[in-house]
Amino acid sequence: MSDRLVVRPVSQTDFDDWLPLWDGYNAFYGRAGDTRLPDEITRTTWTRFFDAYEPVHALVAEKDGRLVGLVHYLFHRSTISIAPNCYLQDLFTDETTRGQGVGRALIEAVYERASAAGAPRVYWLTHETNHTAQALYNKVAEHSGFVVYRKMF
Amino acid sequence: MSDRLVVRPVSQTDFDDWLPLWDGYNAFYGRAGDTRLPDEITRTTWTRFFDAYEPVHALVAEKDGRLVGLVHYLFHRSTISIAPNCYLQDLFTDETTRGQGVGRALIEAVYERASAAGAPRVYWLTHETNHTAQALYNKVAEHSGFVVYRKMF
Amino acid sequence: MSDRLVVRPVSQTDFDDWLPLWDGYNAFYGRAGDTRLPDEITRTTWTRFFDAYEPVHALVAEKDGRLVGLVHYLFHRSTISIAPNCYLQDLFTDETTRGQGVGRALIEAVYERASAAGAPRVYWLTHETNHTAQALYNKVAEHSGFVVYRKMF
Amino acid sequence: MSDRLVVRPVSQTDFDDWLPLWDGYNAFYGRAGDTRLPDEITRTTWTRFFDAYEPVHALVAEKDGRLVGLVHYLFHRSTISIAPNCYLQDLFTDETTRGQGVGRALIEAVYERASAAGAPRVYWLTHETNHTAQALYNKVAEHSGFVVYRKMF
Repeated sequence: MSDRLVVRPVSQTDFDDWLPLWDGYNAFYGRAGDTRLPDEITRTTWTRFFDAYEPVHALVAEKDGRLVGLVHYLFHRSTISIAPNCYLQDLFTDETTRGQGVGRALIEAVYERASAAGAPRVYWLTHETNHTAQALYNKVAEHSGFVVYRKMF
Repeated sequence: MSDRLVVRPVSQTDFDDWLPLWDGYNAFYGRAGDTRLPDEITRTTWTRFFDAYEPVHALVAEKDGRLVGLVHYLFHRSTISIAPNCYLQDLFTDETTRGQGVGRALIEAVYERASAAGAPRVYWLTHETNHTAQALYNKVAEHSGFVVYRKMF
Repeated sequence: MSDRLVVRPVSQTDFDDWLPLWDGYNAFYGRAGDTRLPDEITRTTWTRFFDAYEPVHALVAEKDGRLVGLVHYLFHRSTISIAPNCYLQDLFTDETTRGQGVGRALIEAVYERASAAGAPRVYWLTHETNHTAQALYNKVAEHSGFVVYRKMF
Repeated sequence: MSDRLVVRPVSQTDFDDWLPLWDGYNAFYGRAGDTRLPDEITRTTWTRFFDAYEPVHALVAEKDGRLVGLVHYLFHRSTISIAPNCYLQDLFTDETTRGQGVGRALIEAVYERASAAGAPRVYWLTHETNHTAQALYNKVAEHSGFVVYRKMF
């Protein structure tokens, strides 16, 4: 394996290398320690990546034979299009690899797949205070001006 | 029929009464005239409301035997829960009935159904400049602080 | 509760009463003892009954406050219709209640729901040697003349 | 292009070559003339092949640059497995190419994809009187002994 960055679909054998990235991503959003994501959810989500019935997908970025990033995306219906929308739900790059284009490569890999699949758009959410992420997002996407309201049960 | 507000699932026979509300909603988002939503999309979306395989749903608000509002919501997967999220995609109230609690009743009806269905959350998007809508949303939901990035193809 | 037969959607609190019926059904098909259906599958299937995103449903028959039968059905796509087909996958009646119309009531309850949902058909499979079941099926449905080929991996 | 048989996913540009095969397949099942499948269904099914949200897929067999066969398959839930089942709904080979292994190649291509997707089985239906088809099916699959009951609405 070269030191070139490769973005590819996750495979069943990647679990042990994908998990630390997933944990790192969750920790960033405060899901760590006492508020850790239950293992059952991680297991279910992992299974869904490989379930031909579920429109839930994962790509990983590999560098020097090591996983350094992940992106998870899914398709869902929209009332204003026949083709589904693509929601890029999770994006994470290993700390040691930040600023080297891994995040951008992962986003662009989702663009390619969503576009090939006929989805009219890819969208994602980020917190308004996350300026680091937005520096990248402003280069590759449009800040839509839409904000998210939610009700938790 | 009394003058009480009733929120109920849309039925096949509601099409002619639902359509003006749907057109009004789309016009609000600039989808009118030359940029009108193609009829084929409206037809497909309408069909999906009644397709037992599609997790896409519509409720309407009825007052004095007249449809005065609509809400469309759908379920989609999330990587951080086993149960699906509920996305409230469209909400619209007839101009003549604004300020009478129709929007709120429609949102709360979605809450009931999503909660009964085990969804951990309902969310929706609104433009940051739509202060009228946000006056209501701030009363019934949480302004999450998340903003939407998107890439259109 | 009266001694009348009631067919209703299963609820979360039915698990302990539904499980013996599910086990009985599986045992009938040889999935018992060493070939028992793994608990993880039962748990996943149970969860899917209550997942608003999954088109998988369960009804139970209740008599004298006791569950005496189950039926599981699901919707799936078909290439020759716009609306989905309804596949009645599992049907089971408690031994002590056989011949009292429970199976028929369960099948007819699926007909009602599938028909209301716009599905053009309900279908199911039975082994060609299961003459007992076919005595009932011949009364409520059409023996289609189609047989099943399969490849297991 | 060589004269070798190639089985590949259908692409948007195949429509005009796929349609006569689809019509031929439907005619075999009596859906021709007055009972022809409505164009709207054909259009919807075609769209679903390319809809990333729909678990409905089509492969075509190409020989000498000409489409000579089609197979359509879809994934759907099962209550007795976590992974979905694969239903091979439609299989058709151009008359002029019968007996040359096209049908078998199409079935085996579905096996590959279903197996890679983690589906525990592929199944399909054939009429008990279709002995020609069964001569092939008996070589590549198991005659399960299950028969189909159905109720049309």
